Amino acid sequence: MGSPLLAHYADRLQSAIAAKSTAAVVGIDPVLERLPPALCAGVTDNASAAAALAAFARDVIEVVAPLVPAVKINSAFFEAFGAAGVAAFFASVAEARRRGLLVISDIKRGDIGSTATLYARGHLGSPEVADELQVPDAVTVAGYLGVNAVRPFAETAAATGRGLYVLVRPSDPGADEIHEFGGERPLYRFLAERVAEWGSLPERVGATGLSCVGAVVAPKDAESTRALRAAMPNTPFLVPGYGAQGGTAEACRACFREDGRGAAVNASRSVIYAYEDETRLARCEGDWKRCIESAAREFAADIAGIMEG
Amino acid sequence: MGSPLLAHYADRLQSAIAAKSTAAVVGIDPVLERLPPALCAGVTDNASAAAALAAFARDVIEVVAPLVPAVKINSAFFEAFGAAGVAAFFASVAEARRRGLLVISDIKRGDIGSTATLYARGHLGSPEVADELQVPDAVTVAGYLGVNAVRPFAETAAATGRGLYVLVRPSDPGADEIHEFGGERPLYRFLAERVAEWGSLPERVGATGLSCVGAVVAPKDAESTRALRAAMPNTPFLVPGYGAQGGTAEACRACFREDGRGAAVNASRSVIYAYEDETRLARCEGDWKRCIESAAREFAADIAGIMEG
Repeated sequence: MGSPLLAHYADRLQSAIAAKSTAAVVGIDPVLERLPPALCAGVTDNASAAAALAAFARDVIEVVAPLVPAVKINSAFFEAFGAAGVAAFFASVAEARRRGLLVISDIKRGDIGSTATLYARGHLGSPEVADELQVPDAVTVAGYLGVNAVRPFAETAAATGRGLYVLVRPSDPGADEIHEFGGERPLYRFLAERVAEWGSLPERVGATGLSCVGAVVAPKDAESTRALRAAMPNTPFLVPGYGAQGGTAEACRACFREDGRGAAVNASRSVIYAYEDETRLARCEGDWKRCIESAAREFAADIAGIMEG
Repeated sequence: MGSPLLAHYADRLQSAIAAKSTAAVVGIDPVLERLPPALCAGVTDNASAAAALAAFARDVIEVVAPLVPAVKINSAFFEAFGAAGVAAFFASVAEARRRGLLVISDIKRGDIGSTATLYARGHLGSPEVADELQVPDAVTVAGYLGVNAVRPFAETAAATGRGLYVLVRPSDPGADEIHEFGGERPLYRFLAERVAEWGSLPERVGATGLSCVGAVVAPKDAESTRALRAAMPNTPFLVPGYGAQGGTAEACRACFREDGRGAAVNASRSVIYAYEDETRLARCEGDWKRCIESAAREFAADIAGIMEG
């Protein structure tokens, strides 16, 4: 696979978090119907819808780039508009990287090994193309098809200084019927153990002791989150469910290690649609970008407070 | 959601199977390095790679269209080449539908409910665009995030005469660590019960008694496959693992109901790369399309034999 093209993902993420003094990650989930009216006025087909999403993403990225270390860009919201949407997705990844943000592509792909190799190539890049701006710094991965589904992502990530986050505990309560399956030792605990193992290979561990194999861990409650942190001591957590999805500060705190490292906390809708709050919109004199900026500042400060304990 | 735009998926599939006298489905998994040399001679970037994949898919579709009722087109193999690859994927879906084949888009998407809605829109189409040729007849779905992840696909499918296949038992043995999880009553059995429930809503059941909510069931062995057939009596099965992945005829037979309905059996590599077999290539006088045609005929006949029991 050749030598790493970039420093280890967990080290780069930790540096970016230190530089911005917050582990807040803004999620870019653009829904056409919720965009500022000026952006979606001329939308008639997939191509114009994709252009509107790209314009919105570009503006969000510009506003939040000075405030947070990373953005998470969700493929589904772009893929809804076909190949044009996918092109807008990759353009948004590149735009965020150009602005100096780390980028997590939220793709949740999962397939059998021979197919997973192709998804890894498409989204994490082969080592030869890993310096392209369209390749994100990390991706989310579904590990439900086992080690073979994850290996191609982990190997490419380790070889190129990139990362992955395997779904361990999703934020949607509807996912509990599967993740709580198995009684005393439910599936999400088993997944956590496997993620810890997959991440423990020496070539996957960075200078901070954290792996390039991370986990998506929704902060359901503080106690079970602490147990997951203990089960995956060297695993970076990507924490969804802050803000609109209702994660609590205490459960979020439990996602961090005692050294204050090891987690990045995502909020999407509560930041990027902050202008839907009429009080905020009035305070920002009707300027939707200022609404996003003020919401992102508050979110970044919230997470900084949680990191300090 | 409006009234159905097409007849029920299971009814349409059953008619197509009857018309071709076989439930064989050819899988289109194009790997650049394995294409006939003439097709990938000029490949230098994603755009030219995508064009090569589209040309190969077009030729495979032309050859197999008279022989089988449906093709399964795997997104990963196209997505490996970015937005250009995704455009080639949708073009291949349209090409197969234009040739009169039913098309299953193998996308295995799975995300929380609000996001699943967007994936469903992108791949099954909203009812308003469901007559577009780029919208397939069915998709594969990952149900590991529970009912909310599946509902948007099931609702769109029921409203537009389309279908979905939820992963219940994948063919890769590496997936067993998750699917066999839980001991006596393992996860794949729980998934089967849920799929049967999701498919049993009256508006999801067609005239043949089969649902638009199907299951991906690899024929691991005849006994456990019979148990899955019994647990999902009204669920159409999409059966991977025939041919290159080694499913046996007896286990395949167990995927069909006693009335000979309810399953479609996929083979990908053993058909589309049939020209890699030098004996066959010599027999076909070096013509790679004739190799695919003869392999597709043999596969179609094999499955017809299995259906007769």
